[in-house]
Amino acid sequence: MHILIVYAHPEPGSFNGAMKDLAVATLSGAGHQVTVSDLYAQNFNPVAGAHDFIARADSARLDVGTEQAHAARTGGFAPDVQREIDRLLAAELLILQFPFWWYSVPAILKGWIDRVFAYGVTYDFGRTWDRGVLRGRRALLSFTTSAPPTASMPDGRNGDLERTLWPLHAGVLGLCGYEVLPPFVAHAVRWVDDARRLAILDEYRQRLLNLDSDMPLFFQKLEDYGPDGRLKPGIEPRTPGQHRGPRWHLPDAG
Amino acid sequence: MHILIVYAHPEPGSFNGAMKDLAVATLSGAGHQVTVSDLYAQNFNPVAGAHDFIARADSARLDVGTEQAHAARTGGFAPDVQREIDRLLAAELLILQFPFWWYSVPAILKGWIDRVFAYGVTYDFGRTWDRGVLRGRRALLSFTTSAPPTASMPDGRNGDLERTLWPLHAGVLGLCGYEVLPPFVAHAVRWVDDARRLAILDEYRQRLLNLDSDMPLFFQKLEDYGPDGRLKPGIEPRTPGQHRGPRWHLPDAG
Repeated sequence: MHILIVYAHPEPGSFNGAMKDLAVATLSGAGHQVTVSDLYAQNFNPVAGAHDFIARADSARLDVGTEQAHAARTGGFAPDVQREIDRLLAAELLILQFPFWWYSVPAILKGWIDRVFAYGVTYDFGRTWDRGVLRGRRALLSFTTSAPPTASMPDGRNGDLERTLWPLHAGVLGLCGYEVLPPFVAHAVRWVDDARRLAILDEYRQRLLNLDSDMPLFFQKLEDYGPDGRLKPGIEPRTPGQHRGPRWHLPDAG
Repeated sequence: MHILIVYAHPEPGSFNGAMKDLAVATLSGAGHQVTVSDLYAQNFNPVAGAHDFIARADSARLDVGTEQAHAARTGGFAPDVQREIDRLLAAELLILQFPFWWYSVPAILKGWIDRVFAYGVTYDFGRTWDRGVLRGRRALLSFTTSAPPTASMPDGRNGDLERTLWPLHAGVLGLCGYEVLPPFVAHAVRWVDDARRLAILDEYRQRLLNLDSDMPLFFQKLEDYGPDGRLKPGIEPRTPGQHRGPRWHLPDAG
């Protein structure tokens, strides 16, 4: 199997670096073809802009989505974007390896998503979710945190981790059609001792060797929604991001 | 009042640009002192790394949090970071103006957070949430989407918008002590006609002129949590990110 690991940490000696190295060794050793996009080492530019395109649909006014669709049709992506697109589309399994910064990915990885998950490449009109461009492929978030696991329990100080991950799991990966595997979370790596760190790495190796048996996260299918984009009556929401309860802070008019 | 608008869009002629210009005119006209960090125009580098620091606590191994704390104590931030820190700390109101890309902020704005919301500057050990470094200040997300409001209703295809915003509202702003105002969302600006776009701008102007009457979002207080970081028995979760129900995808062990 072709596997792409997108790795985003500035320090090669970090725990994230060790997790990336372990994944390369483990998955290569199991016979897979592993490619690493080491965003810091590549000096990857995460800023989406005019430089993403070698030719423009509208050279006067930049609309990133319009230009992405144009570039997808005409082969008009800049080389640094096209290289990452090629790697992404070649991979049956995508692993994102990163430190959890501000309840999300580091900017260098967010920008890899902004630029590489281009309209017309990883999603298209009507080609999302269970009809997604990338359906049949799998994706895994693997990340470190600096808090104990209890802090990201449903009633924890940081909020329920699976709600916190909704933008990445659903908004990025699920929307494009990936089967999203449950994340591998290395909790509080800053605070635990070396024995625990080694145990986490061993857990990760075991996880990587058994990804085939993972049950992907559930997302609703497109046919579950009415023309207004809301779940049809009788369809019960079954994801961390959706519900039929009251809102706390926003009016229901949206 | 001092107000900082952090604006992240590559096209000055965009609707985001119009919202930024409107906010500057409206708030200045109301007698406030408004500063704009125009991240694209400034060519802001969003990649957190060794270049963030002019002197290092540990020059051999880069730990961003450790170096941020060191720089906060010693005045050791690089000039581009220090300038943004100064602007942030001078502002009683922070407005983030951006297009909603992949259920979050564009990378250039995520990196502004990664680098400027530095440990020892906007948060510190024990100085978070209602004991946060930035308590007493207010913050507002103002952003455009390309989907109709129904798609981000609780039972909408994109998930409940207030759950989707949890990482930004709670994880970034609330954690640092900000009073977070309900967001201003310009829905589907790509698809509506000019009359509707002008109406949205008028709604935004009215909103900006009446921020004083806004009720900030609720977050739990630190005293609500036990030593394990979970809500004490008897404290009912009252935020979009926290609950006592089952998890869908992650084991309760975290």
